[in-house]
Formats: sequence, structure tokens, C-alpha cells
Amino acid sequence: MTMTMTGTEQDLYPTRLSEASAPLTRQHPTVWGDAASGPFTQEELDAHESRGYTVLDDFLDADEVARYTAELERLSEAPELANDPRVIRERGTGAVRSIFAVPALSDAVDRLTRDPRLLDRARQLLGGDVYLHQTRINYMPGFRGTGFYWHSDFETWHAEDGMPIPRAVSCSIALTDNYPFNGGLMVMPGSHRTYISSVGETPADNHTSSLQAQEVGVPSEDDISLLAAQHGIDQFTGAAGSALWFDANIMHGSGNNITPFPRSNIFMVFNSVDNALVEPYAAPAPRPEHIAHRESFAPLR
Amino acid sequence: MTMTMTGTEQDLYPTRLSEASAPLTRQHPTVWGDAASGPFTQEELDAHESRGYTVLDDFLDADEVARYTAELERLSEAPELANDPRVIRERGTGAVRSIFAVPALSDAVDRLTRDPRLLDRARQLLGGDVYLHQTRINYMPGFRGTGFYWHSDFETWHAEDGMPIPRAVSCSIALTDNYPFNGGLMVMPGSHRTYISSVGETPADNHTSSLQAQEVGVPSEDDISLLAAQHGIDQFTGAAGSALWFDANIMHGSGNNITPFPRSNIFMVFNSVDNALVEPYAAPAPRPEHIAHRESFAPLR
Repeated sequence: MTMTMTGTEQDLYPTRLSEASAPLTRQHPTVWGDAASGPFTQEELDAHESRGYTVLDDFLDADEVARYTAELERLSEAPELANDPRVIRERGTGAVRSIFAVPALSDAVDRLTRDPRLLDRARQLLGGDVYLHQTRINYMPGFRGTGFYWHSDFETWHAEDGMPIPRAVSCSIALTDNYPFNGGLMVMPGSHRTYISSVGETPADNHTSSLQAQEVGVPSEDDISLLAAQHGIDQFTGAAGSALWFDANIMHGSGNNITPFPRSNIFMVFNSVDNALVEPYAAPAPRPEHIAHRESFAPLR
Repeated sequence: MTMTMTGTEQDLYPTRLSEASAPLTRQHPTVWGDAASGPFTQEELDAHESRGYTVLDDFLDADEVARYTAELERLSEAPELANDPRVIRERGTGAVRSIFAVPALSDAVDRLTRDPRLLDRARQLLGGDVYLHQTRINYMPGFRGTGFYWHSDFETWHAEDGMPIPRAVSCSIALTDNYPFNGGLMVMPGSHRTYISSVGETPADNHTSSLQAQEVGVPSEDDISLLAAQHGIDQFTGAAGSALWFDANIMHGSGNNITPFPRSNIFMVFNSVDNALVEPYAAPAPRPEHIAHRESFAPLR
């Protein structure tokens, strides 16, 4: 296990432990900016601080949804990406499940990440300059689409990528309509205020399997039950073009999808430049650049 | 393949075919009785004929839900049922998934099947005397509960049990709250008017695996897409104690359940005594008595 802290620092978010430990109260805010610094009103910021997520309907218009959907299709079928490690495929069928590091592959998505509608909100939530920690397009096919089990993104980003604290926010923009029954994201509102350590050491190259089905960094059933009893479960439903902003530490997951209606989205993680990655807190080596950017922490403009 | 029709009869619901065939229009009504013959109003009967299902909230009160839940727990843990073929377990975990032929195991459930709230409605929908084709208690655990892929019950009952026509109705009574996100039943409203033949011969003893995960008698993705585009998808949500009545031929399925909230129900299939089982239409031999009753077709009283 690689530990990068100096002798006097204490890791406030320990994880991948040898035995179960009690849930911890998060020591850092969720919203770092104020109403004067961006498009969110104070009421919206307060709600985001309290719930850990915010849904914005009609964030993209129909033309934009069509344009990014075409980009997704182009990338899914691009022969030069057939064996690219940035393309993650479903176990079994081999269908494309996710494409990582999208701005390097698509000028349209690159421009989207810098769009003031996104960038100004990310800067406001995180209180200043941000950069992209991770980007991907997710595609969950109909009939046999598999979900993601419950997890906190921050737990993984801290353990495996060396993200110091939860000063990051994800934005997921729906490219298809999200129904209650086609594998839409479930979140536990308010769960982002609690940090759940996970049990078990991180194997080398864990990311080669964890992006298909996570097996390390998974919270216990007791902790999931506790958080669900405290916070309940909200489900992200809404038309194509809606955006979900959610805190790095919120407990979330998704079921499978047996309906004929596929589900796809563009997913961007903004991290504060003051929260740049260090060495992993609980993994033998950092994950690859396309999963967790560390070549540059220059502010996104 | 066993065929039991005489030379002059034609099977209106052929299935387990050697190649795909076009969807067929159902030749029989869904509602066989009228408003004078039972508790459903004419408006409710018309809606049931059109949609193929009816939800009745607060069908059982809280005391009754508690009583049947206790029965479910008692049966799940009964040592004498540990290796009983009536108890179907999850692949992998071995947790109880279904218990069949419940009235023989539980006086309380036996009385419930004869309760006028149920029996009068079943008689009204099917136009006369009915008997129980199948009964079961279903239990979908939290965290790892697996669903059922899309199917028509009647397709299986016709092929494997020898049920001549779709003159049967199921009643599923929720013993737990059904959320949109814990694996609740999805139905395609109106799909019961279309009969989808399936492709592939029925293997011997198909039921020993099909009750865990169905592999034969599954509609094609094209047919599922067609029905979903025509009819959309409704999801059965509602508090414990609510009842879902649904036609034998409605296309339905359920997703998995990663939430901590388990889902259980009592499931009863009423069949018209005028629709008693014959030999299977497309299987080497009938399924066992506890899955498809054929020892007696005496009217339930």
C-alpha cells in the first residue's frame, strides 16, 4: 500500500482497510463558492449542500443531444478505437459500455466541457479554478444492460487515484430519456456527508476489472442499509438533455436494464485545482492517465 | 414435441417453433364476465380488457400483510422444506426465491385464495368457476435480487403445461412496498392482445432451470421492441397490501434489485374450469404438479 502523506498529516478518508470501521463524518464542505460567483442561486447551492445533487432539466437542447449522440455512435464504431484501452466493453457481449478521455477523441465534447453553462457551475460549486479529473461517455444497452453496484466515486478516486479530499463534482448529461425502469442512476440524498471506508486491499491493476464490475471499494451491506434508512433513495429520471450534478462522495448505483430503451450519458468530473492528485492513498500504483488525469492540473478555460 | 389436438383442431397459440413467426392477434377475450357478476364495475372491466391489468391499492390491510409476511418467513426457514422441490433458490446465494403450491403448506394462504375479495373477482374476470393453476410466494432479496426477463406466462403455460387458451388471470399481492427501483414488475399495457410465439424446442425438465432464469420461451428482442414501442411500459409500484391483477398473456418482466429493500409477494393464478389443462402443446412432458396443478380442476369455493 502506497501512502504519500508526510508524518504529521492524518488521512481523514482512510479506506481499503483490513477490517470494517464505523462510518465517518465528512470534514469538508460540498459547496465551496457562493451565489455571487456563478449561475446557481443561494437556494440551489443550499439544496446542493444538503442533498449532494442537483438536477437541471433541459440543460442541453434537442439539437445538442442529437449532436453528442452522433458523436457517441461515431466513437463506438470507430475502427481505430476497436482495441483502445479507453473503450470499456460489457462482459459477455463485448458491447461498448464506456469511452474514457473523450475530449481527446472529440472536439465537440472538448468544447462542451468548457461551455460556460458547465464550467461556471463547476467553478461555483468548487470555489475557484477546476480541471477535468475524468470524462467518459456511458452507454447502457437495452435488454442486457448491467448496472453499477452502490459506491462512492470519491472512495475510489482517493484510494486509487490519490485525490486528497472530496472537492470534486460530477456532471452527467442524459443523451437518452431516463425512465424509472431503464437502469437510471439512484442516489441516496444526503449520503455525501458520510464517508464509508471499504474493506480489502486494492489488487494491482484493479481498474482492468472494476470498470466492468466493481469488486473492491464496495461498501458493506450494513453500511448501505444504514445510509438508505437514513436518507432514502432518489432516482434520476428525466428527458434527454437533462443534467445531474452530484458530489464526489454521494452513495449511488444503478440497476440493470431489461427494457428495449438504452441509456447513455456524457459524464464529466471536475476537480478543484487546489485538490490535485498525489500518489494513491490505498493502491500500489496510480490508474492510467485516461481514467484519472494527472499529466496536467492546469485550470480549464 | 407432444401435440394433443385432434385432427380437426388448430392450435391458435403455436410456440417453441423452429423459426421466428409474426406476432399473432389474440383470438379470445380477456374479460369473460360482466359488471353484474362481481365486484369490478363495468368501467374497471373495460379498463382491464384494454390494458390487461388492474391495480387495487389497500387490497389487504396492515394486519393481513404482517400475517402473510410471517407465513413467508416461517416457510423460508422451515427445516422440513430445506430440500423440498417446491422451494426454488437463487443461483449463487441459495436464498429462497419462490415457494410453490403454498395452500398445501399454509392454512392462512389457503383461506386467502378462497377469500371472496379474490375469488369473486377471479370468477368475474374469467366468467364462471375457477380453480388454482399455480400459487407461489416470491421473495426478491435486497442487494443481489435478480429479476425475470420479459415473458408471457401464458406462452409457458400453453407450451409446457397444456393450458388451451388464455382464460387465466394472475393476482400478485405485495407484501413489501414496491418502489420504482427495487425490482418491481414491469408490464406492457395492451400487450396481452398480441401473442408472441417463441423459437426453440423445449428441453426435457426445462422447469428445473427456467424458474431461476428463463432461457426457452423467451420472446425475441425485435418482438419486445415492437410491443414496447406500441404499448410503452408501466411499472407496478405501491404500498404493501396492494394487488395487481394481470392477464395470463401480458408481456411482463422485472429488473434486478440492488437496493436494501427486499420485495416479496403472494402470487396466485386462477384458471377457468372450462380451460382445464390437457397435454403440453410444446414440451415432452407436463411440469410437476406443484408448478401446474392438474390433479383436480374442481371449482375453488
